[in-house]
Amino acid sequence: MYATTTRIGVKPGEAARVAAMLIRRSDALAAAGCRVYEVGADPLDPDAVFVVELWDSEEAHGAALELPDVRDAIAAALPFLSGENAAHGFDVVGSPLRDA
Amino acid sequence: MYATTTRIGVKPGEAARVAAMLIRRSDALAAAGCRVYEVGADPLDPDAVFVVELWDSEEAHGAALELPDVRDAIAAALPFLSGENAAHGFDVVGSPLRDA
Repeated sequence: MYATTTRIGVKPGEAARVAAMLIRRSDALAAAGCRVYEVGADPLDPDAVFVVELWDSEEAHGAALELPDVRDAIAAALPFLSGENAAHGFDVVGSPLRDA
Repeated sequence: MYATTTRIGVKPGEAARVAAMLIRRSDALAAAGCRVYEVGADPLDPDAVFVVELWDSEEAHGAALELPDVRDAIAAALPFLSGENAAHGFDVVGSPLRDA
């Protein structure tokens, strides 16, 4: 499994709009191997939207960027982004919530 | 729901040891409101362990630091940490994987 955490910089006052675009229901994501995709906000960093994702694999995550739902969401959000993004991905080793 | 992403700095060569401590099965976490707790590694940043967590609330996340399982894991890992940690939490707005 592969995890990503992302800070998406947005133009002033646009965080709620961008977050709403990113949480539109998309069953294509789960079908493509997405297990978790949580979108959020931090009152202390209002010009950003935060995302944590879990995917079956790094390859599944990369391939999903070509999904129509994902391409549409990126195109819709682009005018409201500042371009100051930070993303990090890592390979999951395990979880205390399940047996190894 | 509340999300956290953490980079835990570890002493050189100790990432696998620390990760193993953090993924010991703990049913107390789920009972305390933890929905996701994924531990991982990044080959490009070998002196760190990464964690993404989802909790029912920020309060549940904070209260869990007092759980015996969590206190034991912190105490066991402490000698192998570098002290260079970075953590970020945010309030979850929603997910494209479910209806709002």
